[in-house]
Amino acid sequence: MGKLTVGIIGAGRIGRLHAEHLSRNVRVSIKMISDVFVTDELNSWATDLGVGRVTNDYKDIMQDPDIQAVFICSSTNTHVPFITEAAQAGKHIFCEKPISLDYRQTVEALEAVQKAGVLLQTGFNRRFDHNFKRVRELVQNGTVGQPHLIKITSRDPAPPSLDYVKVSGGLFMDMAIHDFDMARFVSGSEVTEVYAQGAVLVDPAIGELGDIDTAIITLKFANGALGVIDNSRKAVYGYDQRVEVFGSEGSVGTNNDFPNTAEISTKNGIIRDNPKFFFLERYHDSYIDETRQFIDSVLNGEKVPVDGNDALQAEKIAFAAKRSLSEGRPVKLEEVK
Amino acid sequence: MGKLTVGIIGAGRIGRLHAEHLSRNVRVSIKMISDVFVTDELNSWATDLGVGRVTNDYKDIMQDPDIQAVFICSSTNTHVPFITEAAQAGKHIFCEKPISLDYRQTVEALEAVQKAGVLLQTGFNRRFDHNFKRVRELVQNGTVGQPHLIKITSRDPAPPSLDYVKVSGGLFMDMAIHDFDMARFVSGSEVTEVYAQGAVLVDPAIGELGDIDTAIITLKFANGALGVIDNSRKAVYGYDQRVEVFGSEGSVGTNNDFPNTAEISTKNGIIRDNPKFFFLERYHDSYIDETRQFIDSVLNGEKVPVDGNDALQAEKIAFAAKRSLSEGRPVKLEEVK
Amino acid sequence: MGKLTVGIIGAGRIGRLHAEHLSRNVRVSIKMISDVFVTDELNSWATDLGVGRVTNDYKDIMQDPDIQAVFICSSTNTHVPFITEAAQAGKHIFCEKPISLDYRQTVEALEAVQKAGVLLQTGFNRRFDHNFKRVRELVQNGTVGQPHLIKITSRDPAPPSLDYVKVSGGLFMDMAIHDFDMARFVSGSEVTEVYAQGAVLVDPAIGELGDIDTAIITLKFANGALGVIDNSRKAVYGYDQRVEVFGSEGSVGTNNDFPNTAEISTKNGIIRDNPKFFFLERYHDSYIDETRQFIDSVLNGEKVPVDGNDALQAEKIAFAAKRSLSEGRPVKLEEVK
Amino acid sequence: MGKLTVGIIGAGRIGRLHAEHLSRNVRVSIKMISDVFVTDELNSWATDLGVGRVTNDYKDIMQDPDIQAVFICSSTNTHVPFITEAAQAGKHIFCEKPISLDYRQTVEALEAVQKAGVLLQTGFNRRFDHNFKRVRELVQNGTVGQPHLIKITSRDPAPPSLDYVKVSGGLFMDMAIHDFDMARFVSGSEVTEVYAQGAVLVDPAIGELGDIDTAIITLKFANGALGVIDNSRKAVYGYDQRVEVFGSEGSVGTNNDFPNTAEISTKNGIIRDNPKFFFLERYHDSYIDETRQFIDSVLNGEKVPVDGNDALQAEKIAFAAKRSLSEGRPVKLEEVK
Repeated sequence: MGKLTVGIIGAGRIGRLHAEHLSRNVRVSIKMISDVFVTDELNSWATDLGVGRVTNDYKDIMQDPDIQAVFICSSTNTHVPFITEAAQAGKHIFCEKPISLDYRQTVEALEAVQKAGVLLQTGFNRRFDHNFKRVRELVQNGTVGQPHLIKITSRDPAPPSLDYVKVSGGLFMDMAIHDFDMARFVSGSEVTEVYAQGAVLVDPAIGELGDIDTAIITLKFANGALGVIDNSRKAVYGYDQRVEVFGSEGSVGTNNDFPNTAEISTKNGIIRDNPKFFFLERYHDSYIDETRQFIDSVLNGEKVPVDGNDALQAEKIAFAAKRSLSEGRPVKLEEVK
Repeated sequence: MGKLTVGIIGAGRIGRLHAEHLSRNVRVSIKMISDVFVTDELNSWATDLGVGRVTNDYKDIMQDPDIQAVFICSSTNTHVPFITEAAQAGKHIFCEKPISLDYRQTVEALEAVQKAGVLLQTGFNRRFDHNFKRVRELVQNGTVGQPHLIKITSRDPAPPSLDYVKVSGGLFMDMAIHDFDMARFVSGSEVTEVYAQGAVLVDPAIGELGDIDTAIITLKFANGALGVIDNSRKAVYGYDQRVEVFGSEGSVGTNNDFPNTAEISTKNGIIRDNPKFFFLERYHDSYIDETRQFIDSVLNGEKVPVDGNDALQAEKIAFAAKRSLSEGRPVKLEEVK
Repeated sequence: MGKLTVGIIGAGRIGRLHAEHLSRNVRVSIKMISDVFVTDELNSWATDLGVGRVTNDYKDIMQDPDIQAVFICSSTNTHVPFITEAAQAGKHIFCEKPISLDYRQTVEALEAVQKAGVLLQTGFNRRFDHNFKRVRELVQNGTVGQPHLIKITSRDPAPPSLDYVKVSGGLFMDMAIHDFDMARFVSGSEVTEVYAQGAVLVDPAIGELGDIDTAIITLKFANGALGVIDNSRKAVYGYDQRVEVFGSEGSVGTNNDFPNTAEISTKNGIIRDNPKFFFLERYHDSYIDETRQFIDSVLNGEKVPVDGNDALQAEKIAFAAKRSLSEGRPVKLEEVK
Repeated sequence: MGKLTVGIIGAGRIGRLHAEHLSRNVRVSIKMISDVFVTDELNSWATDLGVGRVTNDYKDIMQDPDIQAVFICSSTNTHVPFITEAAQAGKHIFCEKPISLDYRQTVEALEAVQKAGVLLQTGFNRRFDHNFKRVRELVQNGTVGQPHLIKITSRDPAPPSLDYVKVSGGLFMDMAIHDFDMARFVSGSEVTEVYAQGAVLVDPAIGELGDIDTAIITLKFANGALGVIDNSRKAVYGYDQRVEVFGSEGSVGTNNDFPNTAEISTKNGIIRDNPKFFFLERYHDSYIDETRQFIDSVLNGEKVPVDGNDALQAEKIAFAAKRSLSEGRPVKLEEVK
């Protein structure tokens, strides 16, 4: 294997996270990072990391012939144009989820990718989590038999800012989309129908923005299994991310990850520390793995582990959930066009 | 407190279970037990237990002026006439669930009870389980705050016989009814809407009888919370009975009960024995407690811990679930008449 | 099987406990209970339980030809004379542990039993605990292979009264004696050498009485295994009773028993309730089982599950531990005469 | 903070491990690595990592004036001369444990360090483990109160090669030395007395070399606490590393680390995967942390987190344990000269 030259678009939290992991990958050279706001702090951070250049124009990346792959870590509304542009420039693409908030646009972006013959990986990092990978494995190798029930718990420690909520695309598209992908990943089957219940129980201001903060979403799968996802924007005890697959031969369930295993026995009960706080802690290793596997796939000319269709399917489920909630009825995936 | 003289109608599994527990209660005298089939074995069992008399005519119990309370442990289709008759005879009543498979009939039976001014307890024994009582307590005392999500897992180790399935009233009325009651019990709120998904994944013969063996049922509660119950007729690892209540200040979840705490570390993994096999093992103590509390309530002239309305509400949810499944839409409880 | 007529000597906590369990055993008739202090309360309790007669003279029991078996639940200093007397009267014997605080006397009591040809069971109730039975089973059936390390944790929630400490025979004879028996029970091997470390860390008043409240006792077994017991008179979180057997093919460890399985997630951590408080709660079922098995053994003329030699061996280990502590060196069991 | 230039002596498993972690530390430059065997593979590995130079003569490192700190990762018998030489050359030192197998020599090495005024950190990496750090913290902050009992379980998945056993210094010096340090670390107190039991239960060949493979070591601490360590060279279920500190206000115990949290329910029981296999997996992060903290300490001119005295004390306990085993009696630390 040789070395891959990459560019990163967007130097926010997630762009920097990828940059740090890529900088430790001996098969990667980060030639450029772009952000609309270039500060001294960003320059200094990039230098420390060995990033070749910082620019405020993403086009510098698109037009650099050395750059073989781009990481699109900018805001969701830029994903479709950037994917299209990168594809046309013949660059492989790693793009954060979701691709877009509009089904038609996502389809068009994927068509551009296909036409260009480049690879596109989407940022469903949870597929690389040690717990969920093990669940998938135990379903695939038949340990739990034929899946009957898929259960996913996904609760954030605290709601995002209201500013973020406004542009997030809503709980289904912003938060549950990871769970929709997880449902497909662990079941090994497509979702065919969705029924969503939602409520505003955490913060009325979220409701005023037309969004919900609590949800129970039931699913039907092509293989006959039934599923359910529960979401909350606020679990006071921290990030709660668990999966259970129950099947004809058994069941597998996962717990959260904890910062340590200490069990403290006191006169007030047996106590352990709260789970790892949020996604940066919990999914630390899965972020490393997803970029490493993307790099390997590109260098080896192999299929990426999570592709554009995976993004599209999860988005479809999110659209169906949205419609289900607004119309108060189960919605079939085939209704989403 | 004095002593209570009781009669038991039905000497099947559950009738004998209650008889055995009552026989160890120093405040109870079992004067009579009736069953349509009186065998030598039954007589001998009754003698060992100190039961006064065995009869093949339940009317002997109804007409005995000494008998202050009756336990109705006969088949579901006899519950309504027996409740009515016992009420008219001025006897307090303990009746197994459900009261009937017909909403109108259940209402009439409860009216007869009310008119007679006798006490009626229904057999939702799980309310007396050490785990679920603790969940209820932690909700009631505010530890988990305002409930947002109620999750109930209820899976049998193996499906009942097809003969039983035929007369059972279906999965919702026969099996999930316990979970509907549990949902009300732990949430402290009424269910207002139900959406049920069902599937036949365990045994096609169950489907041929018009029943299902796998279900995910979502609930809306009057207090704004959302809920979900998942059911299966066959968990190969044994009886699976867990509850989780997630709220604004925290969450409480319960695990199954196990025959021991031994954790066995081998080269093939860390293993523990399967959960207690089925309801007789898991709910052993809760059956004792429910009869003990019924006896205490009658002797003290106090309210029973689970009354006729509790049965009616659970049945209503079951009717709504049935309609939801057949019509493929969420059904409001107020639609059930 | 017929019915066994028994008498109980001593109506303190443990005598009454056995009486209650025996009263629920359909194969037992309690003809008499004796205590040096007969109160109205005792009479009323005995009547409720269906005990035939209360006497203040244990000889009434010894001399009653109907009584086939006696439960010796009086203070330790009476065990040897009562065992001897009961044996001579041809009665089978259940005796609480220890038989005596003097090796010679215990041997003499056992000789009297042997001479009379009666059965003697000693009160090592923990052998009937669901957890420890399972450990024994997994050792016996080879799951853990050849035992290498035996570890026993045994900590009380609070020290006994100083008055009790004075007559208790000391921590080794009073408290650790259960663990010495457990070591033999789970390892399936005899102890050959003991080294004991002791400290007074809980209450200096215990030290002033010449006793200790904290100990670590290491053991060597005839089968080559090594063992360790740790004791404390005060675990603020409650009764702590765990065992681990590590062997060539694996390991088995047990946890405490808990009043429920609820796991409470709060912003301050994940909490569960403290273990069952003390021996009456934790060993509730094992007390029932030990008396039931004694009754069965006597009625069937079979060997009892825990016999006089088991008591003698545990006492021998206690003597060796005591000597080890006072002489500051490992002591071989064969040194105890 | 600036950057620290380091040299590494020994390119075996542990030398390379440190090199890899140091290569990712932006404040470190690895100027040289030495090994008696320089192969193409080593050269290529070093190049990939960005190591300046590979040499077969450690003196090149000692004599390079740019090198401010050395990592001594060569065999134990070289530690004392290399420490002495590095100290005389004014270089800060990170040295693997133990410093030597001879008490006098360790003392002399530490004197050389002190005279030179350089920093010396020793490789007790387990102090940086997330679990044990938390235990230490809970002892230090008073959560468990005054420590009464310290329990350490430390079992390897498989014995080392017999060739290694020969030069290892024996189980106490090679394996238990980590536990001796852990005992001091979590208790916050010095060990004053040791009693060791040992056995050959895993492999007779280990016994033929004069070593043991199974041990139970009891400890007395200056603060009055009692302790026990159990060791085995072979736990078939994998690396077993647990600690418990029991005190006047509570107790804290840790479990092993696992590769995932999946709990698999099957008809044969509830199963989870074995713990992380061995020290490279289990202590992965603690190795990173110990080097990072050493670098920080040197750059900041601060005390190192584990110093020479820590090594000396652990070695002293190992000597005492060895003598205890051979003389069959408890040995006071003050006897070790």
